[in-house]
Amino acid sequence: MDHKTSIKELKEIIRKFCEERDWDQYHNAKELAIGIVTEASELLEHFRFKSEKEIDEMFSNDKKRSEMSEELADVLYFILRLAQRYDIDLTTELKKKMYKNKKRYPLEKFRGSNKKYTEL
Amino acid sequence: MDHKTSIKELKEIIRKFCEERDWDQYHNAKELAIGIVTEASELLEHFRFKSEKEIDEMFSNDKKRSEMSEELADVLYFILRLAQRYDIDLTTELKKKMYKNKKRYPLEKFRGSNKKYTEL
Amino acid sequence: MDHKTSIKELKEIIRKFCEERDWDQYHNAKELAIGIVTEASELLEHFRFKSEKEIDEMFSNDKKRSEMSEELADVLYFILRLAQRYDIDLTTELKKKMYKNKKRYPLEKFRGSNKKYTEL
Amino acid sequence: MDHKTSIKELKEIIRKFCEERDWDQYHNAKELAIGIVTEASELLEHFRFKSEKEIDEMFSNDKKRSEMSEELADVLYFILRLAQRYDIDLTTELKKKMYKNKKRYPLEKFRGSNKKYTEL
Repeated sequence: MDHKTSIKELKEIIRKFCEERDWDQYHNAKELAIGIVTEASELLEHFRFKSEKEIDEMFSNDKKRSEMSEELADVLYFILRLAQRYDIDLTTELKKKMYKNKKRYPLEKFRGSNKKYTEL
Repeated sequence: MDHKTSIKELKEIIRKFCEERDWDQYHNAKELAIGIVTEASELLEHFRFKSEKEIDEMFSNDKKRSEMSEELADVLYFILRLAQRYDIDLTTELKKKMYKNKKRYPLEKFRGSNKKYTEL
Repeated sequence: MDHKTSIKELKEIIRKFCEERDWDQYHNAKELAIGIVTEASELLEHFRFKSEKEIDEMFSNDKKRSEMSEELADVLYFILRLAQRYDIDLTTELKKKMYKNKKRYPLEKFRGSNKKYTEL
Repeated sequence: MDHKTSIKELKEIIRKFCEERDWDQYHNAKELAIGIVTEASELLEHFRFKSEKEIDEMFSNDKKRSEMSEELADVLYFILRLAQRYDIDLTTELKKKMYKNKKRYPLEKFRGSNKKYTEL
């Protein structure tokens, strides 16, 4: 479905869900950022102490794969909610950032490199 | 632009950017999850020790607003990259999660409540 | 017990526990830092969407208080283990940092202020 | 100094520093937990996309080593402050946790294993 669903539509689903529950009062930027961090951390916890091979096996296992995908959805939920509440156009922001990244990471210098732009 | 850009298109922009730089070798699930957490934490750091009123003022300030939006884009970048690398359809996952959330948080019990479903 | 136990003693308990289990091979700096972040995030999750009043009540409740204290111990475990593995003297580092903080946050400017030193 | 300084003494240094600045009003459990997570994440960010070999080199480099040690001290600062504010004896909590860990991770089953106790 990723090929036909817009960010706007996903934001709308979440807006409706939260407004019906009268959650605007709890969903300020600090709490939503806490939501993003804590859910992201639950995803990371799956990989703690695991080798790359073990992680690949986790993604080949339907149950584990589904759990990790759900964690990712949990992070996305809070990102979309924050963007919706504070009127941030994620597409515009992402494209701006990718434009900046292209300047920061020119192909000829960063192809095959794991360096941060501040390190070169 | 959020109303007309699909998740698929955003994933494509990021896939192209990373593949041109030959970064698949560094972008495994653990590293990308670290990316999500650390960028999310940079967003959260903006709000540390700030009151709700101060945070609202930050969003009214163009420079601060732009900084926070960029942090959000940084988190989204790693989410989209992880989804692209491991073939996760974010739209499907988010809709599945919202379906689950509707069961977990029935309107009559959770309207106006800040409780977690496990607490009621 | 905090009044008579040194950081060194706590590190020793953890070193012995981990070496007996032959865990040095898994406990590199990246994994231990993941450990610190993910455990810290579990602590933070207790406070998500909670008001200050609700959090105070949680600390008055023996069961909740004990859960939160355990999360804090989990974070401390990984900090001590990282310090032990990489030969970092936490006392020295903390004292150096407090010295720096005193310069960064002079009393006359920061008494009663929630500002970061970079903001003033 | 880790061999002769008690946790209690470190808490005292921090208590004095914060009380002189009248920061109790800002230092509630949620904010301090945010402090722990965000500082821990700054430490983790040093290791993002780095190989084990590169990380070892970072610890051999005095400047980098000092930066990472300072990040660790930043995390410890917020842990000690939270423990001091909410009257948590970290030594007792850590010892309780290690006792639990010994039960959860019996030597004969977990020697050389990277499994979580819930996985075996």
